[in-house]
Amino acid sequence: MDKINDEYYMGLALDMAEHAQGQTGMNPVVGAVVVKDGAILGLGTYLKRGDPHAEVYALNMAGPSAEGSTVYVSLEPCSHYGKTPPCAERLIAEKVSRVVVACEDPNSQVAGRGIELLRQSGIEVEVGVLRDRAIRLNKQFIKFITTGIPYVTIKTASTLDGKVASKSGDSKWISNESSREMVHTMRHRHQGIMVGVGTVIADDPQLTTRLEVPGLSPIRIIVDSTLRIPESSKVLTDGLAQTIILSTSQADEGRLSTLTKQGITVIPCGDGPEVDLYLGLTKLGEMDISSVLVEGGGRLNGSLIHKKLADEIVLFFAPKLVGGYESPGNFMFDGFDLMQDAITLSNIQVEQIGDNVCIRGNPIWPTETT
Amino acid sequence: MDKINDEYYMGLALDMAEHAQGQTGMNPVVGAVVVKDGAILGLGTYLKRGDPHAEVYALNMAGPSAEGSTVYVSLEPCSHYGKTPPCAERLIAEKVSRVVVACEDPNSQVAGRGIELLRQSGIEVEVGVLRDRAIRLNKQFIKFITTGIPYVTIKTASTLDGKVASKSGDSKWISNESSREMVHTMRHRHQGIMVGVGTVIADDPQLTTRLEVPGLSPIRIIVDSTLRIPESSKVLTDGLAQTIILSTSQADEGRLSTLTKQGITVIPCGDGPEVDLYLGLTKLGEMDISSVLVEGGGRLNGSLIHKKLADEIVLFFAPKLVGGYESPGNFMFDGFDLMQDAITLSNIQVEQIGDNVCIRGNPIWPTETT
Repeated sequence: MDKINDEYYMGLALDMAEHAQGQTGMNPVVGAVVVKDGAILGLGTYLKRGDPHAEVYALNMAGPSAEGSTVYVSLEPCSHYGKTPPCAERLIAEKVSRVVVACEDPNSQVAGRGIELLRQSGIEVEVGVLRDRAIRLNKQFIKFITTGIPYVTIKTASTLDGKVASKSGDSKWISNESSREMVHTMRHRHQGIMVGVGTVIADDPQLTTRLEVPGLSPIRIIVDSTLRIPESSKVLTDGLAQTIILSTSQADEGRLSTLTKQGITVIPCGDGPEVDLYLGLTKLGEMDISSVLVEGGGRLNGSLIHKKLADEIVLFFAPKLVGGYESPGNFMFDGFDLMQDAITLSNIQVEQIGDNVCIRGNPIWPTETT
Repeated sequence: MDKINDEYYMGLALDMAEHAQGQTGMNPVVGAVVVKDGAILGLGTYLKRGDPHAEVYALNMAGPSAEGSTVYVSLEPCSHYGKTPPCAERLIAEKVSRVVVACEDPNSQVAGRGIELLRQSGIEVEVGVLRDRAIRLNKQFIKFITTGIPYVTIKTASTLDGKVASKSGDSKWISNESSREMVHTMRHRHQGIMVGVGTVIADDPQLTTRLEVPGLSPIRIIVDSTLRIPESSKVLTDGLAQTIILSTSQADEGRLSTLTKQGITVIPCGDGPEVDLYLGLTKLGEMDISSVLVEGGGRLNGSLIHKKLADEIVLFFAPKLVGGYESPGNFMFDGFDLMQDAITLSNIQVEQIGDNVCIRGNPIWPTETT
């Protein structure tokens, strides 16, 4: 049963924000609820870049009765002129009495200044209501705005012996349908999806978001140091989403020119032989791609782990044991001599999905890697 | 983890509707979400009588891009000119492609006509997505609009031996603080709160909604056949909410006139000696009071049960045994000879609240009562 309190209204603001995940690009998701005298007067959520902020929709809905209200907003109201005028000024102009904020804006252009502006105008401001949930919702935005590097989620689907295919290379299907639907929700909520060229050669995947209802497809990012990608690959020809290739200066000039003419963006990332993944992610960040879902195969996963470039790891396990000394694993990298040096996941969440199990967490990097 | 599908968007519409429970009076709670090409374009909820409907807010937020969209709405769009123009016509005018409805409007003025109107205009309509949750959210509205009688919830807080006070009459406190906060949320979500005059004489309660944040206080309804209520009672003097007394023609004329002058509404319900509760509820329904929370003491609870007038029973149990042959019980009525004739609760929900347990359900009436 519910208890009506600050958390109750902030919970609704966060529910709305959560549902907009995936459609705000590099910007955060935000929800706002205007409450006065025990009743909701307005609600709003931030929908996409350039659109009015959550507070604006909620205050518009409330109209003049917003005066004296409490406004719950899941992220600190902005204080700077961006694509829209500052929300802090709007809240002051509407003469609201109290603003409850879930978490501060990590954006250095705001970073407490929105809250300060409200307080200077005599508005009571409370910060930190449902802060943890708010931070989780905007984990991609927070990483990106503070580092310029996209938030990287590695997703794997393996057997219980950690294999992503049999020794003959068969991998259809490991996880169950319900797990695969969740992966498509993850695609909707990331701006980029990354695979190695080996996956493109082996499976010719579309890498689009396919759900019961339409979803947003991420930009397809192929890691291909020498531009081996087949010309007929779906990601090059189907036009269903943008495709970017991360390559090296060892790439063939002729292939490069053909791909560029096809409208494919090829980004050189170092001199090779391998793609410099840190450089690649930095360049993707410069293109305002704030989140990347890696569905890449064990070698790409292993390289990212080795370079400490993953923020979150989501592992789907199917109740199977496939065996095979040569069967590809979910994380293929040189590894550590000592178990105590292994990469450990923190913030573990476990969920049973039919006969599959999903385990997710955030890697804690050892102070020294091999 | 979420799966993005029709239920996902309808879930948000219902989340918004749920948070407006208590503020829409005799009208239903409704949420609406406009979605196109994998992104939310607008959302809205119905806030109070006379205000625009949920669909209107959501379509206003979406603007012209609503054309071709899917609109999720938790209750069938209206087809009649009430306080606002019909939403079905607005949806048609906006050229939306698809409307997903959680449940039909039980209001005979709509009852399928909204859906029919949409379908006649070539809009694809799907009905029944999250229907059970939508019906639960509007249980009060559905009962009231189909019978004219308020939805009656009986709430009790007792020891594990079913006592609401000790043999000396002591009752402070039985349930824990968290349980009591939930009761105040229940008050916020009912339009009327009913107690017997015995409770007013014993405890002089305010019967208002007191939460961490402001809530809406229900209209106070005192069952008092002979107008024994003390003149100084808080419910008569504090002005914190409206007070109505259900009485009988045996009430003292002088007391009646004094109370009326104080602005208290006294409603005669039969010739006595007891208040005719069915008649009382009917008259409350005529005043557009669509829901009543009974916090009444064992005799009032027993009378309502005996007359089959309760729709829902919510029992808070504290982990205590107080004993006492004369200690008042939570339901005091003549009772049945045979256990098989006992009133049974269906749709049982159990929740642990700290060291308290809340059990709720809907009574199934035996075909014959004593």
